Amino acid sequence: MSTTSPLFGPRGTEAEIEEGTVFAPKFDADGLIPVVATDANTGDVLMFAWMNAEALEKTIRTGDVWYWSRSRKALWRKGETSGQTQSVRDIRIDCDQDALVIKVEVGGDGGACHVGYRSCFFRSVPVGPADGPLTLRIEDAKLPGNGHKHP
Amino acid sequence: MSTTSPLFGPRGTEAEIEEGTVFAPKFDADGLIPVVATDANTGDVLMFAWMNAEALEKTIRTGDVWYWSRSRKALWRKGETSGQTQSVRDIRIDCDQDALVIKVEVGGDGGACHVGYRSCFFRSVPVGPADGPLTLRIEDAKLPGNGHKHP
Repeated sequence: MSTTSPLFGPRGTEAEIEEGTVFAPKFDADGLIPVVATDANTGDVLMFAWMNAEALEKTIRTGDVWYWSRSRKALWRKGETSGQTQSVRDIRIDCDQDALVIKVEVGGDGGACHVGYRSCFFRSVPVGPADGPLTLRIEDAKLPGNGHKHP
Repeated sequence: MSTTSPLFGPRGTEAEIEEGTVFAPKFDADGLIPVVATDANTGDVLMFAWMNAEALEKTIRTGDVWYWSRSRKALWRKGETSGQTQSVRDIRIDCDQDALVIKVEVGGDGGACHVGYRSCFFRSVPVGPADGPLTLRIEDAKLPGNGHKHP
C-alpha cells in the first residue's frame, strides 16, 4: 500500500519530525496511521479508526473524513451510507507524527458508533483491586432510532 | 507476549463483544492495544500510546497509568522519571473492545509530551486543496521549564 502523497514531506531528523513544521506522517507496517475522532462541540472522543495515505490525503483535500476499513479492506467516506458524516474542523498530529486527532462536526443523527451510540466509548471499565473478569458499565444512552448502522 | 489476565473475560459473540458487559479486550498481533489519554479537566487529547495486557492490568489495579514502550520494549509507569504521572479518572473501551480512552489527572508540571508541551498534539495540519508538502502550524505554547523529558 502506498504511503506517499504529494502532501507529505520527507521524514527528517528526530528533532525535525518531533518539533518541526514539515508534515511527514508515519504509517505502520500495514501502511496505516491511527486516528482519534473527537466531537468539535463537546470534545468527547467519538471513535478510533485507521487511515492509509489515500484516506488521509482525501480527508485533507476534501474536508470530509475518509478512513481505511481493516475488516473490509476498503476506503470509506464516514457516513456514506449511514448519514453519520464527519466534517473536519481541525486535524492535529502528534510529536512522533504517527497518530492523528481530528475534531469533527457529525452529520445525520449525530452518532459515530455502528451499534447506535453517539460515541464508540460508551462503556467504562471499573478501576481498583479485583479478582475475576471485570464487568463493564454502560454509561451512555443509545441515540433515538438506534440500530446497527453501516459505514 | 501474554494477552491474558484474570481481569479479562472470554471474547464472546460479536453482539456480546460490542454491546455486552464482559470486559474482553482485544490485543493486536504484537499483543498491544491502542490507548488515547485525555485530560480529565479539559477533555483535551494528551497523547496516544500502547498497552500490553500487563500494563492494562497494572493500570486497572493501581489507578496509575502504565504503558508499553514499543521503542524501548519495556513497561513504564508514566511519569516515573519525568514526574508527569497520570492518575486514572475513567477508563472507556470501544464497541469492538480493541481501543481504550483513559481520562487522567496529570501530575508534575501538567505535561504529557516529551518535547515539552501539555499535549503531544500541538501541531495542526492545514485542510483544503494543496499542491506540495504541507506546513504544520504550531498551535500551543511550551510549558514553562520545557525540555526533553524522560518517561
